[in-house]
Amino acid sequence: MKDQTLFAYLAGFLDGDGSIYVRLKPNKTYKYGFQVAPSVVFFQKNSAEWLLKEIQNRSGYGYLRYRNDGMIELTIGDRPSIKKILQEILPFLIGKQKQAQLMLKVLDDSKQIASADDFLALAKLIDQFGELNYSKKRKIHTQVVYDYLISKGILTP
Amino acid sequence: MKDQTLFAYLAGFLDGDGSIYVRLKPNKTYKYGFQVAPSVVFFQKNSAEWLLKEIQNRSGYGYLRYRNDGMIELTIGDRPSIKKILQEILPFLIGKQKQAQLMLKVLDDSKQIASADDFLALAKLIDQFGELNYSKKRKIHTQVVYDYLISKGILTP
Repeated sequence: MKDQTLFAYLAGFLDGDGSIYVRLKPNKTYKYGFQVAPSVVFFQKNSAEWLLKEIQNRSGYGYLRYRNDGMIELTIGDRPSIKKILQEILPFLIGKQKQAQLMLKVLDDSKQIASADDFLALAKLIDQFGELNYSKKRKIHTQVVYDYLISKGILTP
Repeated sequence: MKDQTLFAYLAGFLDGDGSIYVRLKPNKTYKYGFQVAPSVVFFQKNSAEWLLKEIQNRSGYGYLRYRNDGMIELTIGDRPSIKKILQEILPFLIGKQKQAQLMLKVLDDSKQIASADDFLALAKLIDQFGELNYSKKRKIHTQVVYDYLISKGILTP
């Protein structure tokens, strides 16, 4: 299995049991107080560890992360790999095509942050993952970033 | 998206969040007391109903089943369709290749049941789904079938 059919397989797997998202992680060493952390993740139960390893081998992407709830994640976290795999599988994605497009836009935009306003605009873009992924766990959204930037005087109201 | 890449997509989806299994359902109208019920199922949360519908449209397979635990299943239950889709996606399956091969064998063998012994042999084959799928819910296994056949005098010990 190679090339287009491998990409289509990965698209199907990701649509079935995967996720594409960006988190904003509080980190004071960053200029605007938050790290932009993108992820493409394939999930499985512990019992299917070998399957994730096989996908890792065939695709050449990601590392395994063992959660403490009986799940394993094959996580792709580095930007060049995320960009590459999303471009490869985008034509075949059905369920998560919007998330993939949004991720590619976030990765592009995040290279061109020249001001706190730019960073806020990026945070707004990242907020969209919450709706697309029906996520109830997102804690850091644009308002939190805005409040931080104001509190630090990086942004003026 | 068509043909090989659609099949590869379906294989990935099924490996990610699907299941291939056969159940033996107690049914006294059947000669050996049990109905052989094969299924190929794609799972998703309610929120992704549109995705299962899209897969149904593109593939032409299955019907939607709304569970009462917030999950939806796209279920393929008729034998000709199961045989067809498994033959299409078999080259691309990684995680559930063994289940697919076992299913094809069960479908073939179940056409040639000429005796209670044949039916017991088929039940043994079906037992293998339990191990392959790490299933803890299987209640009807070969021993249950055997006990029934003995109790009815269909089989002699």
